Amino acid sequence: MRPYVLIILAGLLAISCKDNRRPAQKEEPAAVAPAAEEPVEITVSDAEMKQASAIYFDKCAGCHGTTRHGATGPSLLPDGDGKAPATKALGMAGLKVFIENGTAGGMPEWKGILTPEEIDLMARFLQVDPPEPPPFEMADVKATWELKVPVADRPTKPQHNRNINGYMGVIMRDAGKVAIIDGDTHEQIVVLETGFAVHILRPSASSRYIYSIGRDGRITMIDTYYDVPKVVAEVRASLDARSVDVSKYKGDKGDFYDKYLIAGGYNPSHFVIFDAQTLEPLSLTKTSGNACCGDKEFVKEARVAAIVASHTDPIWVVNVKETGMVWLVDYTDPRNPKSTQIPTERFLHDGGWDASGKYFLVAANSNNKIVVIDVPNQRLEKIVEVGRTPHPGRGANVKDPKLGNLWATSHLGDNTIQFIKTDPGEGQWTVVKKMEMPGEGGGSLFVKTHPKSKHFYADRTMNPDASLNSAIYVFDLETFTFKKKLEAPQGVDGRAVHIEFNQDGDEAWVSYFMGEKSALVVYDDATLEVKKVIQGDWVQNPTGKFNVYNTVNDIY
Amino acid sequence: MRPYVLIILAGLLAISCKDNRRPAQKEEPAAVAPAAEEPVEITVSDAEMKQASAIYFDKCAGCHGTTRHGATGPSLLPDGDGKAPATKALGMAGLKVFIENGTAGGMPEWKGILTPEEIDLMARFLQVDPPEPPPFEMADVKATWELKVPVADRPTKPQHNRNINGYMGVIMRDAGKVAIIDGDTHEQIVVLETGFAVHILRPSASSRYIYSIGRDGRITMIDTYYDVPKVVAEVRASLDARSVDVSKYKGDKGDFYDKYLIAGGYNPSHFVIFDAQTLEPLSLTKTSGNACCGDKEFVKEARVAAIVASHTDPIWVVNVKETGMVWLVDYTDPRNPKSTQIPTERFLHDGGWDASGKYFLVAANSNNKIVVIDVPNQRLEKIVEVGRTPHPGRGANVKDPKLGNLWATSHLGDNTIQFIKTDPGEGQWTVVKKMEMPGEGGGSLFVKTHPKSKHFYADRTMNPDASLNSAIYVFDLETFTFKKKLEAPQGVDGRAVHIEFNQDGDEAWVSYFMGEKSALVVYDDATLEVKKVIQGDWVQNPTGKFNVYNTVNDIY
Repeated sequence: MRPYVLIILAGLLAISCKDNRRPAQKEEPAAVAPAAEEPVEITVSDAEMKQASAIYFDKCAGCHGTTRHGATGPSLLPDGDGKAPATKALGMAGLKVFIENGTAGGMPEWKGILTPEEIDLMARFLQVDPPEPPPFEMADVKATWELKVPVADRPTKPQHNRNINGYMGVIMRDAGKVAIIDGDTHEQIVVLETGFAVHILRPSASSRYIYSIGRDGRITMIDTYYDVPKVVAEVRASLDARSVDVSKYKGDKGDFYDKYLIAGGYNPSHFVIFDAQTLEPLSLTKTSGNACCGDKEFVKEARVAAIVASHTDPIWVVNVKETGMVWLVDYTDPRNPKSTQIPTERFLHDGGWDASGKYFLVAANSNNKIVVIDVPNQRLEKIVEVGRTPHPGRGANVKDPKLGNLWATSHLGDNTIQFIKTDPGEGQWTVVKKMEMPGEGGGSLFVKTHPKSKHFYADRTMNPDASLNSAIYVFDLETFTFKKKLEAPQGVDGRAVHIEFNQDGDEAWVSYFMGEKSALVVYDDATLEVKKVIQGDWVQNPTGKFNVYNTVNDIY
Repeated sequence: MRPYVLIILAGLLAISCKDNRRPAQKEEPAAVAPAAEEPVEITVSDAEMKQASAIYFDKCAGCHGTTRHGATGPSLLPDGDGKAPATKALGMAGLKVFIENGTAGGMPEWKGILTPEEIDLMARFLQVDPPEPPPFEMADVKATWELKVPVADRPTKPQHNRNINGYMGVIMRDAGKVAIIDGDTHEQIVVLETGFAVHILRPSASSRYIYSIGRDGRITMIDTYYDVPKVVAEVRASLDARSVDVSKYKGDKGDFYDKYLIAGGYNPSHFVIFDAQTLEPLSLTKTSGNACCGDKEFVKEARVAAIVASHTDPIWVVNVKETGMVWLVDYTDPRNPKSTQIPTERFLHDGGWDASGKYFLVAANSNNKIVVIDVPNQRLEKIVEVGRTPHPGRGANVKDPKLGNLWATSHLGDNTIQFIKTDPGEGQWTVVKKMEMPGEGGGSLFVKTHPKSKHFYADRTMNPDASLNSAIYVFDLETFTFKKKLEAPQGVDGRAVHIEFNQDGDEAWVSYFMGEKSALVVYDDATLEVKKVIQGDWVQNPTGKFNVYNTVNDIY
């Protein structure tokens, strides 16, 4: 493996390190005696602090929190916090055991990914007080805003005859690039620089604009009316971010197509609303607040996980991870947004809409639960127990002739795919079907199907077994049985990740990354045969892909 | 005046010191040059710190904030806050000028109320860092809970034949007592110890229980089924508090009569939900959060002002002063309450329901505005400009044959009473009538009428002119004209404050306090003649009075 591949692996693991459970083949590291005898004074130079902070941000913050106060993983504080042990008590020896070997509870092993010097540095870094994260307030957001092409200077209609709704935006995360591919012809149209570690893409409700957000909070706005799609505005929403969405409501309460954009921050913990035409920042709302569920605490670091836009109301569903609060944010007054805050389960992560577009389903992944929000009625509908560490992405909707509409999630912690009935009536909000992927363990990040397809696809990217993580698993939706393991085609290697259908719903696209031979592989959904392998210098470890039409219309 | 009267005066002024504007007969103190030349080192001993903190809490915190970070009044911090000047720069000389003389902008003069030694102490206290307020979390609330009589040991029906709905609960605030008077016979039934500076009373929805809350956050629960009403439970909700209300909804979503109680805290800034049968604390929610309106800030000290219970939904309307957010708190899951947070105007204070029970009207008093919330639809309906520093209490509802339903407020800052049309149609949410009290200046705290009455009553308690503040002003509701000034009857003196109708709506009760001869004066509403003067050793500076039936049913 080339060094940069290792970094990518580390980056990916950081997304879901808690969840990267492997079959319990491995012993937990032996209990470590407090290293009270350790006489070494811990020193971290300024330069080392900077280096360690960067490693921490990239590989550890996802689970242990940006400020090391814990999240899905325990806190990492010199003097402990009453729950997790003091890192000073673990000492160099204890910390190195954890970092090098990981734990059966979900922590990955970093030996071989971090160098021995880096591991030594991190063990020291974790024993000194965490650095104060810099402030990033509304004035800072505004200072980053760059309107490259004013609205008046943009084309008034498409400068080309291609089908924008067929466009596939492809993230090359670690290259900080987004490729736009013509979904109808499979032709690459452009590759654009979009900054550090792009996380997701969202097209505007009219399909014209595509917005990307990086893990560094940078939002890039791409105008597809140009013959060669072009970046027309940029802004930074937060120092560490994951989510972006557009306003998708048009109806009695107004036409909000292409009007507003929201981005959610991990650190600082806030969301920012922007003018979707220019990316001008309009308001910033902190998400610090009361945690749900039992003995409450007031959580300062309350990160914004998934955000989705409702089609039935002018609201965004904003999922706050640490508080377990789902905020329904009314964007009719974007400078002064009203919100309804619904207590659910702590540590919310990712989710999507059911087929009716009325219910939003989101994983409380560390609790093995799916939370269901009735969005038009602004209330918690149900909490459903599923498998170990669900990771639905946006999930997948299946219409079964007998059972009705079902929404599915796969899991990081086991090999099941579970279907929750979303239609009213008997069995609603219960798991009515389960399927198992062949082979040991979970590791699945994404599932997908399409209303026209009789197939159900799941990846298994985080499974440690290369023979499992390099394949896509296809199930027959008439029988809910396993049908075919799609292996990497000739000339392609690495891990398979993320499935996306084209607009017509007859092709399933898969990314291959973290190998020597990156590719986008297009499968014919009818035959499950490879239809096209897209490769080239510009195809650098692709990850998420978003067809414009399916993403705008929440077809998954 | 006896010394304790002075303390009472100070206490009352502290409620609304911002608002205690007087006619501009007085010059603003001359601008004070920064006392950079002042060489004196400022020292405050531990004992003095305690004494000064107590004075500050009682007299200053209402306007300048419990932590001295400002609220309706400016901050009082040694090094300033970028808006208000540094108290260190004002120095002893500058601060004493302010404290002794007050300002035309709303600060009362404290000379004659505080001793010269106390003024010297406060001028020093304000130049050192404010003391950290002690924490008061859920565990602290729970530790104060005292269930004196378990539910099973209480009477199952009234032990008497009196009409509980006619009971009048009367606050003797500075004595820390509540008297219960039989409204039908005017007979005193009991006087109960209820703790420091009782602020308001609220009966339970069934009328059985009466709850008082003190400015020290102590809630006392009185059971009126006993022949002699009895305290059956106590708890402390906060260190500094103002508001309490009960659950008043019965309907499709459940029967919540006598089920839950909410109390709002100034410091800490939170609300606590209790079991209304026992006062067992169920949950605590901090109200720190994003401020409304323009360039937002995250406000830590976000005090809970008025709280009212909806009759149409299982929710409380919780008004957060510093953020200008109106929270609609759903109590169907009291341990995990959902809330909708509506941005309105900053510095919300007091308010009440319109006649339909659908709209809640609340004063943003420093902005001279009344905010209207459409509670069933959970949204901001309107913001209405009124006079200077409105102080409606709960306001007063009037049905005019031509104009329809109107809701009225009086003002601290001017002598007008303004009527806002609340019925749909032309003129809704505009001021459609104004009346003026004779004489200079405002100072009114409360207005009142009753559906059966053709009269409208207003007090003028905060007016500095004794000939004005000792009277009640009665207007004719057929002509919207001033009709009669009700002067203190023979043998009664002090300031007139707060009007309350009896259950039948044919008597208006007024409190006289802050004089030598406290009394409750009962007026015949038909003739406007004194019907009864209630006096006695137990009538010690009465303030608010609450008829059980009118309060439960929001008749005002």
